[in-house]
Amino acid sequence: MHGVECENVSRQPADAATEARLRELEAQVAALAQARRQPAGLTIIAFSNDMDRLLAAFMLANGAAAMGMRVSMFFTFWALVALKRKTVFQGKGPLEKLLTAMLPAGPHRLGPSQWNMLGLGRLFFDALMRRRRVENLHNLIALSRELNVRIVACETAMEVMAVTKAELVEGIQFGGVATCLDEAANGAVTLFI
Amino acid sequence: MHGVECENVSRQPADAATEARLRELEAQVAALAQARRQPAGLTIIAFSNDMDRLLAAFMLANGAAAMGMRVSMFFTFWALVALKRKTVFQGKGPLEKLLTAMLPAGPHRLGPSQWNMLGLGRLFFDALMRRRRVENLHNLIALSRELNVRIVACETAMEVMAVTKAELVEGIQFGGVATCLDEAANGAVTLFI
Amino acid sequence: MHGVECENVSRQPADAATEARLRELEAQVAALAQARRQPAGLTIIAFSNDMDRLLAAFMLANGAAAMGMRVSMFFTFWALVALKRKTVFQGKGPLEKLLTAMLPAGPHRLGPSQWNMLGLGRLFFDALMRRRRVENLHNLIALSRELNVRIVACETAMEVMAVTKAELVEGIQFGGVATCLDEAANGAVTLFI
Repeated sequence: MHGVECENVSRQPADAATEARLRELEAQVAALAQARRQPAGLTIIAFSNDMDRLLAAFMLANGAAAMGMRVSMFFTFWALVALKRKTVFQGKGPLEKLLTAMLPAGPHRLGPSQWNMLGLGRLFFDALMRRRRVENLHNLIALSRELNVRIVACETAMEVMAVTKAELVEGIQFGGVATCLDEAANGAVTLFI
Repeated sequence: MHGVECENVSRQPADAATEARLRELEAQVAALAQARRQPAGLTIIAFSNDMDRLLAAFMLANGAAAMGMRVSMFFTFWALVALKRKTVFQGKGPLEKLLTAMLPAGPHRLGPSQWNMLGLGRLFFDALMRRRRVENLHNLIALSRELNVRIVACETAMEVMAVTKAELVEGIQFGGVATCLDEAANGAVTLFI
Repeated sequence: MHGVECENVSRQPADAATEARLRELEAQVAALAQARRQPAGLTIIAFSNDMDRLLAAFMLANGAAAMGMRVSMFFTFWALVALKRKTVFQGKGPLEKLLTAMLPAGPHRLGPSQWNMLGLGRLFFDALMRRRRVENLHNLIALSRELNVRIVACETAMEVMAVTKAELVEGIQFGGVATCLDEAANGAVTLFI
């Protein structure tokens, strides 16, 4: 009879202390595993306004988004031009007006980092890409919006380059270095392009 | 006698439910620890064909490989030239022939990003590096092959730049954005150079 | 009575084997959680000596340090100029003297990657940033020192560019590719600028 009783004991679940430790371990391991299962994030800091570098940036961003990665692109300094939809002079000081006049009017005005040849480089690459059925910069930017790539314009760079919110495409976000680094630190891959 | 029996019970391994939970935890923790122990990976997206940037890229790649890291280099756009072993015009259209003629014939024809001076910059740096006993680009590329650095040429960029497989060195791989991002997301460090 | 004894058994802590496995699991899970709690690290490989790229590099570095991230900056090739405090010709060979004369004398001599216009670009940007109350490169470098950003000069690049320790600011470290990759592999974000 006590034999049976003792068998019952041996089949009892873990005592309270062991049970608590097991629960704690299971919770922690689940949290660690969960952190690893998060979709990998790609953060691109777009700095350059070279047509070819921006092509590479958007090809990587769109490819990553299509693979299910979270993708954020931060546009700073020269790359802000890729987000321009119009040029506004009104309300700017003389130095800012000069700067605005010197900056390209939008992504369709950008040339490659080599062979630019007074604008011929852009036409050359556009012809080449059309022939090869590779999407051009305009289409890649449009596609990135459809794929829900997060687009953030750097506010400090907007100050320095005298670019205003009214000049940029709609539906984008604005942020600073902290926004960018926060995203990057939680992602798997960060590129400065 | 039953005292002994009960002692036996208390020395028995955990009951079936506790045993199952312990096994599950041990398996999960081992998997998490294993994932952390993997050798860190370095992924380099080589975009530029500046001699100095390619020097930096191969110095980092070879250094990492020597340290036991997994190293992959993806060559896209201008950097494809670093993999060229010969130039082929045959079978290309007129625009592609022009492009091929404009692209440098191979890594030995690349100049630095500054002080290029119609090709003098390259000779200047080569002299400087020989004097300082630093390996030149040619030797660094050869060394990367010996160190089993994985070399991948971007197929989309090959299309755009009209570079064919026959023009590139042997023993390399071909892939797209997905190949590159997959590698990068599983590695520790990714650089866009 | 033996019923009581058996109850005692059931309230006993886990048997020795279970106890050992629990302890092992707890230690491993604590180590894994600890590794995740480490402050994220930012590693910047500064390659360029464009004023605007260095501005971006130091803005990111200082922002990250202010957020509590560990920050290391490795200066290689052209970017070494950002660390120069004086120019020394003595004791250098003729080729090295030429190189030293060609390199900018320090960060205050660097121009932007675009609109450089024989030095006017630098004055233009400095005026613009003063007007917009954005810190200039000189102040950003000083701030990075106050924020304990780790500054490392690449020794191989110093060899190639004929830059000596005596020419660089004090309180910095010297290292090679391994130092840089070690830091990068343990950090969350690495940028090649």
